[in-house]
Parts: sequence; structure tokens; C-alpha cells
Amino acid sequence: MGSKIPLATVLRLSRYYRRLAHLEGQGMNTISSKKLGEVEGVTSSQVRKDLSLFGSFGTKGLGYPVPELKRNIAYILGLDRKWRVGLVGVGNVGSALTAYKEFHKQGFDIVVAFDNDKRKIGSKRGELVVRDVEDIEEYLKQEKVDMMILAVPADQAQKVAEKVVGCGIRAILNFAPISLRLPPCVFVRDENMVIELEALSFSLMNRRLIE
Amino acid sequence: MGSKIPLATVLRLSRYYRRLAHLEGQGMNTISSKKLGEVEGVTSSQVRKDLSLFGSFGTKGLGYPVPELKRNIAYILGLDRKWRVGLVGVGNVGSALTAYKEFHKQGFDIVVAFDNDKRKIGSKRGELVVRDVEDIEEYLKQEKVDMMILAVPADQAQKVAEKVVGCGIRAILNFAPISLRLPPCVFVRDENMVIELEALSFSLMNRRLIE
Repeated sequence: MGSKIPLATVLRLSRYYRRLAHLEGQGMNTISSKKLGEVEGVTSSQVRKDLSLFGSFGTKGLGYPVPELKRNIAYILGLDRKWRVGLVGVGNVGSALTAYKEFHKQGFDIVVAFDNDKRKIGSKRGELVVRDVEDIEEYLKQEKVDMMILAVPADQAQKVAEKVVGCGIRAILNFAPISLRLPPCVFVRDENMVIELEALSFSLMNRRLIE
Repeated sequence: MGSKIPLATVLRLSRYYRRLAHLEGQGMNTISSKKLGEVEGVTSSQVRKDLSLFGSFGTKGLGYPVPELKRNIAYILGLDRKWRVGLVGVGNVGSALTAYKEFHKQGFDIVVAFDNDKRKIGSKRGELVVRDVEDIEEYLKQEKVDMMILAVPADQAQKVAEKVVGCGIRAILNFAPISLRLPPCVFVRDENMVIELEALSFSLMNRRLIE
């Protein structure tokens, strides 16, 4: 377990987890690596390789036990516990995130939201009261927050990111369309929805070229 | 150019494009593959490999000409033209997308939005009037739409997807937290924001393990 895990493997684990939850709901007890990868377009050897990075889960010829493998992946991904998530920026994207039910379902609770717009500070998003971003450091020093979502404009993202990293935050989901420059101890995922559309336009211009 | 292009390469092209646009704005004329990959954490050999799939762009020892490479990548990704995008579902996520300025900036115009909620049909999101999803096939037969964004609940996504594919749509960005089963001629990107948070929780549980 000392070796590094490819990010692509981590993202696939999330997809295996969803497939297993679906199959468990259908009452399925065991599944082959072929079946597990099928819907996601992953080969059986890739599935086996991904899972082998974390231990030995299946029985040769019998496949993987569905509920047990699901529980193991939940443990690996940290889905068997609650995570406290902070949000900076309650514009259109940020507001949508506060209402996104899938987060809570999977154990990710947005516990605090900040903005710098005086008209938004004090207003509510569901149960959350929007706080002044000026108070972010004070809040993070007093309350435990595991990860932050940044949904702020591009020209403010770096400054806000440095501030929360200075308060000990080590995991950031960044919606601003820029690459943050942060110490390597901070894990950042960039969520850039334009890039997703660019993959679509590429696919339309280069039919059947994406593998 | 007959070979398949890895999806990861396509997504990196989007990132190179952004970096080049930024550097062009700073007046930089040439860039090395090392510098181009640097901020994104990509090695120089990966940059060269990615670009070589599309042609020969740089000069050995001199690097890549910034404005020209940017223009070439824009062409490869289809960013030198306008794309007509349709949206199904104007809940929290869908509404946020209609207001997401980066789409329009990059040439992706949401030209139509549908919903099945009678209270939403006829209401406006910016300049867009929300239409009845019952009229989607009629609309898609009359108007040109290049790609669709699905921001509908999980239990409706497959049905809606099949409907738009039946009208000739070949590129879909899916926000519903399920994997769509569609013919291989359709290119689908799943945008699952929970999966991004799961990568963060994994990183917090397995410090320095992601490469």
C-alpha cells in the first residue's frame, strides 16, 4: 500500500461503488470483474488491477461478493463517515451546490457558506446562512471543516485558496476556471464544466476518435 | 490521424489551451513543452506526446509559438466556432448552467431549455424561456442543436437521453448520477460532482497516495 494510486483508479472506484450499490439494490450477491466494468466501459483486467491496489477481494472463478466489495470500496473512499464541507461563493454555481442532494446522501455535508457580496451575507440557502468571507479564517480556526469548495470568480480563487490552506485545509474542489498554485500537500480537483463541453465538441469534430 | 485519441489527451488539450491563452495575454511568444506542462503537473514528454497526435507544431530547441499553438488547439477542439447547446432540466443545477458565463465565452451557447414542471414552463432563465419537455422532439427536428446537457433526476435521465439520441443528438453532458446506456455513436460525459468530492475524501484518508 506504499505505492501511489493513479487518480484515474480513484475515480473508477467511485463508479464501481455506484454500480455495486445498484446491483445490491437488485439483490445480486456476486459479480465478475467483467460485469463490474461492463457498464463503465472498463475491461475486466482493469477492474482487477484497480482493486488489487487495495487488497484481495474476490475469489477466483466466483467473482466478488457484492455487499462486501461495496463496503470495502466505501471504506477506501471514506464514504463510511461524514465529511464537513465549506463553500466559498454563493453565486449561481455555489447556490446550486448547496441544494445538490447527492452530496448529503453520500456523507458530504455543506456546513458553512461564505460570500463577499454584502447583499448575500445573512441571506439563506436552505438552512445555511451566508457568512462574510472576511470571517473565514476565524471560522476555520474554531470549527472543523474537512474540505472546501471554491465557487468564486477566477480573479479571487488563488487568494481565497491560499487563505483556507493557511487555515489547514488540505482538499479543495475548485470551480473557478484557473489552475491554483498551492503546496503539494493540498489535493485540488478542478471542476471546469467548459472542459467537459470541449470534449463533446472534439468528439463531434473527430467522430469515433476518442478511446 | 487514424488512431484513437485517449480521452485524457483531449482533456489536457483544454488545459494547454487555457495556459496558452493566459501566456498570450502576458505577451509571451514561445513556450517550451516543459513550461506548457508545468502548471498542470504534466511532464514535457507527455506534452510532446499529446501534441504529436495532431501534427508537428514546435521547432526543436525553440519551443512552440504561443499564438499559433493556441489557434491550432482551438481548431482541434472545435473552439473556433459556435456550438448550439440544448438543456433539459432547469432545477438548481440547470439554472446555474444557464447563467454560467464561461460556456458562452468559449462558444457554447445554450439556445433552448426544457423542463417537465408546469410551474417552470414559460418562466425565464436570463433570455431563455423554459419549454415543455414534451415538445423536445418537435423542437430538435426543426432547430439545429449540436449537443445536449441533461440536468434531470436520475430516474428520468435514460428516457430523456434516448429521446434526444433518437432525434440525432450525438454528444451529451450528463449531470444525472447514473451511467446512461446509449449506442457507441453517442459520446457521453458524466459530470458527477459527488465523484469529485470522493476523490477529495480519498486524498484526505490516503495522504500523498494519489499520483
